[in-house]
Amino acid sequence: MVTAMHSIDSLVALQPHHDGSPVYVAGGSAPVLGQELRVRLRVPAGILEPEAVWLRSLEDGEPRFAEANRMAGDGSQLFFEAPLRMVNPVQRYRWLVSYRAAEGTVDYRWLNAAGWHTRDVPDIQDFRIHGDFATPHWVKESIMYQVFPDRFANSGSEKPTAEWMISCAWDTPVQGRGEQTSRQFYGGDLAGIESKLDHLLDLGATILYLTPVFPAASNHRYDASSFDEVDPLLGGDAALISLIAAAHARGLRVVGDLTSNHTGAGHQWFTAAHNRPGAATGEYYYFNEDNSQYEAWLGVPSLPKLNWNSAALRERFILDDDAVAVRWLKEPFNLDGWRIDVGNMTGRHGADELNHEVARMLRRRIEQVRPGAMLLAESTSDASNDVPGDGWQGVVSYSNFTRPLWQWLAKDPDPEAFGWFFGLPQAGPVRIEAGDFVATHREMSAGYSWEVRLANANALDTHDTARAASHMIAGGQEIAACAQFSFPGIPLVFAGDEFGLHGYNGEDSRTPMPWEQPEKWGSDLRPLYTQLAELRKARRALVDGSLRFIHAEKDLLVYIREHESGSVLCLLARGPVPETSMGAATRLVGELGAELMSVGISPRLSTNAEGKLLVSAEGPGALFHHALAVPTWG
Amino acid sequence: MVTAMHSIDSLVALQPHHDGSPVYVAGGSAPVLGQELRVRLRVPAGILEPEAVWLRSLEDGEPRFAEANRMAGDGSQLFFEAPLRMVNPVQRYRWLVSYRAAEGTVDYRWLNAAGWHTRDVPDIQDFRIHGDFATPHWVKESIMYQVFPDRFANSGSEKPTAEWMISCAWDTPVQGRGEQTSRQFYGGDLAGIESKLDHLLDLGATILYLTPVFPAASNHRYDASSFDEVDPLLGGDAALISLIAAAHARGLRVVGDLTSNHTGAGHQWFTAAHNRPGAATGEYYYFNEDNSQYEAWLGVPSLPKLNWNSAALRERFILDDDAVAVRWLKEPFNLDGWRIDVGNMTGRHGADELNHEVARMLRRRIEQVRPGAMLLAESTSDASNDVPGDGWQGVVSYSNFTRPLWQWLAKDPDPEAFGWFFGLPQAGPVRIEAGDFVATHREMSAGYSWEVRLANANALDTHDTARAASHMIAGGQEIAACAQFSFPGIPLVFAGDEFGLHGYNGEDSRTPMPWEQPEKWGSDLRPLYTQLAELRKARRALVDGSLRFIHAEKDLLVYIREHESGSVLCLLARGPVPETSMGAATRLVGELGAELMSVGISPRLSTNAEGKLLVSAEGPGALFHHALAVPTWG
Repeated sequence: MVTAMHSIDSLVALQPHHDGSPVYVAGGSAPVLGQELRVRLRVPAGILEPEAVWLRSLEDGEPRFAEANRMAGDGSQLFFEAPLRMVNPVQRYRWLVSYRAAEGTVDYRWLNAAGWHTRDVPDIQDFRIHGDFATPHWVKESIMYQVFPDRFANSGSEKPTAEWMISCAWDTPVQGRGEQTSRQFYGGDLAGIESKLDHLLDLGATILYLTPVFPAASNHRYDASSFDEVDPLLGGDAALISLIAAAHARGLRVVGDLTSNHTGAGHQWFTAAHNRPGAATGEYYYFNEDNSQYEAWLGVPSLPKLNWNSAALRERFILDDDAVAVRWLKEPFNLDGWRIDVGNMTGRHGADELNHEVARMLRRRIEQVRPGAMLLAESTSDASNDVPGDGWQGVVSYSNFTRPLWQWLAKDPDPEAFGWFFGLPQAGPVRIEAGDFVATHREMSAGYSWEVRLANANALDTHDTARAASHMIAGGQEIAACAQFSFPGIPLVFAGDEFGLHGYNGEDSRTPMPWEQPEKWGSDLRPLYTQLAELRKARRALVDGSLRFIHAEKDLLVYIREHESGSVLCLLARGPVPETSMGAATRLVGELGAELMSVGISPRLSTNAEGKLLVSAEGPGALFHHALAVPTWG
Repeated sequence: MVTAMHSIDSLVALQPHHDGSPVYVAGGSAPVLGQELRVRLRVPAGILEPEAVWLRSLEDGEPRFAEANRMAGDGSQLFFEAPLRMVNPVQRYRWLVSYRAAEGTVDYRWLNAAGWHTRDVPDIQDFRIHGDFATPHWVKESIMYQVFPDRFANSGSEKPTAEWMISCAWDTPVQGRGEQTSRQFYGGDLAGIESKLDHLLDLGATILYLTPVFPAASNHRYDASSFDEVDPLLGGDAALISLIAAAHARGLRVVGDLTSNHTGAGHQWFTAAHNRPGAATGEYYYFNEDNSQYEAWLGVPSLPKLNWNSAALRERFILDDDAVAVRWLKEPFNLDGWRIDVGNMTGRHGADELNHEVARMLRRRIEQVRPGAMLLAESTSDASNDVPGDGWQGVVSYSNFTRPLWQWLAKDPDPEAFGWFFGLPQAGPVRIEAGDFVATHREMSAGYSWEVRLANANALDTHDTARAASHMIAGGQEIAACAQFSFPGIPLVFAGDEFGLHGYNGEDSRTPMPWEQPEKWGSDLRPLYTQLAELRKARRALVDGSLRFIHAEKDLLVYIREHESGSVLCLLARGPVPETSMGAATRLVGELGAELMSVGISPRLSTNAEGKLLVSAEGPGALFHHALAVPTWG
């Protein structure tokens, strides 16, 4: 007992640590049922002296305890190791640490995926490891660039017109919210995207993610009228084949966007059945008796909801040889996977709870057709219980990263701006401190296995959100991008982020790319994104190194991604920070490493005479430092 | 803004409140899909002045927000009301409260079933209401008395002997843990229980709960060798028929104990198949190819695990006319329901996750045969995600009530005693403060709908645990019993609790009832239990009144159960408490009511000149006071 317990209980840096990364779990990437893994707990030496450490594992619903073995330490840390058997497909566990309190009595603490606890906690936030389906390496290593086709680049090709569209010049302002919002047609197309592939490569992207390319009656195309062809307005099938081939030739993967929750009301399946009782495709939807009325996404009539009870729909969408979800993954298209629109609502309707079943069917089928293809589900809110690992590979969510990060970096509310905060009825993000960012991040991540966390996409913003630049402090997007490229998960960059574009809500953020209008750029962040992508590619720790928080208070967030090939210390400051000692951190980090990259007003890092790590900052900025590799497994 | 936010954020009494009780939900006891309920949030007046309140409801997986209406207040409280539609069978929701902070900016707080939060929280602890299956009124109103037949009372009838048994005289000490533990046979029988029914009535019990009565090769009988007859050692079928008839004649219900997870290795189904490949009942178990090896409960060979994939087992156990789970509920037996042994493990084995399916099938079937019969599942740990309402009615668990209560009332560890704490590898309970008791209780209860909470059993101890008296401070069991009878859920009294019996682990706690040996009684608590049962029956608030915490710090716990027929203020002190103002509580409680009951060293309740409620205590004790009824729905 070197340090008073109340400071251990309140300071994340002093607490024992575990996560699902290879530093702490040996054999955890795709274990099979019955396999025995080794898991270990890291205890900072000289902070807390455990009397005993136990691993609590849920086996067929029953908690079991195994005492962990104390391993040889290295002076700065102790490891406790225990075997963990994969009894169930999702194996849950947590740690119980006993120590002698200052008063001489023995006390206990729990460590689960949400953090360190002074009292008993529910099982739902246990660490978890899922078996069988690993996240493909290329997915973990990817950097994703999102393109909204109508607004990215226009090849200038002649286009048909359609009744719904209001043709706009490239520099016509988008209507952020209104009658014309989904009808403004700017004419971006797939050939235009192909002409810009070098831009993606320059930024270091490894995946081009396209929002829908199927024909529809809107510029966003989430109301597909067919899944059988590419919208002729975008150049048709040939343009997609050409784009994907050109991307693949450059080492870029391409991921599409599929609506498994609904189609458009103009969809061939729907029109064949609407008002036609007894039509074959009627069972694909939730029609009333005479097929005149139907359920729709949030009640919007143009988006009739798919009924996953239908075996015929399952065949047509997933299981057939040329089913929607598989034919685009095959020749001649060769798409590398899907982002699934409103994955959280798919298969859910009243008493129907088919979400996991549909996700599992999709995953199995996609693995047959294109092993290792991407399968991410959009899930705007908390998706923790929808990703056990055998269905969606990961999620595009905002709950564990984007939203708390916006809150930490929020500027003062702008009374002129639209109040937008991820669909909540509040006037923009409300600022929180770094400690709350970490607590929210941990709690909202607790439901994901480590494999799933590495497949989750971390966006600063998307076509459905306001732009980070509009709601963050000056320099905030840059700090946020540093977090995005150094947290577990796939950095998902929405086209325009690299120009620091503004946008006050999702529609407003879909402004056409102002390639030739630098006056519309918020700031030229291309060098930043390029540098971050290079850093992430060069440092394995940033992909699947463990994530351990060193300091999280008010304006300063310090964490380390640890890997046996070398670790990276990450410092983010949102404002001036007086010189602050990292406490136990010197021992945690080892020798001060080489500076890897700095952004904005770089935080300053030094050591004092006692060897303690000191951090200070004069303004918003970030700093990445090389740090010592972690001990490998004995 | 009357009060500083940091005190609101840390003091439960100052926070807005909601729970699933009729005070806060109109129409919530068994709503059907599509039904619109009314829900309301209570805000203490003069503490927090909301700018707006929203109800956030998850609909088909998507969060939706509805602004709540401010209703007329009564000076001490405000209500905000919103409609809540039953979109899904389990409807989840929480509250978002905005207010103007001291600095003039607008800030936000969440209220979910786990409490009041300054930052974003996961969906898993949303309030929830489940549809269709209501908890029967008689279940909610019940007081359960648990009998372990071998140890309760011996009618003196002649009994056969069996190879496994070691016959013991009634006052032979039980072997707490050892070779003979399950073989010590004391000869308690059903006729003996029948002769003691008046004792149960005197205590106010409404349910006699019997641990298993089927033939077995142990004194606990959880290793049934048949489900087709009552153990002849207990008097056979005739004795059970007689006992239940006698109980029913006195208005007492009788609930049995069924092992759906396993049978004994001596069971007719098992012996017919063991080492007999191809035997019809082989599929009831997890046998290897030649039926020589099999899976068993925690690997204990005498308890082979049932395989719920087997359609034949489902017929035999649940679906047939004379299936195990139903025939005992019918004539001539008329059992009133079941406590299901290791409900948490039932149907769970490796990749098999059939727990909810089996629970749902059992519930449906039991409702057909004996509508409103009891169906509680044992689930020693956190059962929150296993009770969506359509399967188990509730659970016999220790996670949300028993364990944190033991910790609050824990005495200093006794080095002489066995270290026992609910299967955890720790040396007895570690003391926590009242605030942590409340936080643990709320978090561990968050996964249950209000209907389920009222069906959950609250035990101080059972035949599987040490006795409360052995691990609590002097007078602790009495305070704990006061909590047990005044918290939502069914008080479950283990025979012997009324004599303050000691026991250092589950087996040790199964000591024969020392009816005639008062020197073995810890203390005669019969009058206490009788009085508590009378109070609970007289005050509807103690059954399904809302539960709102008024004060929870260190040694003092104050809460109120509110009901439109009148409310009850409950004060528990585990030691001396200096005079403490309840802050906002005077307004919360209304006029000081009449004293209803006091226990131990009664806490003192008064009001000061400003009308504030003051509480002090000189030692361990409890006090129940009448309090004003809550406002009814407009």
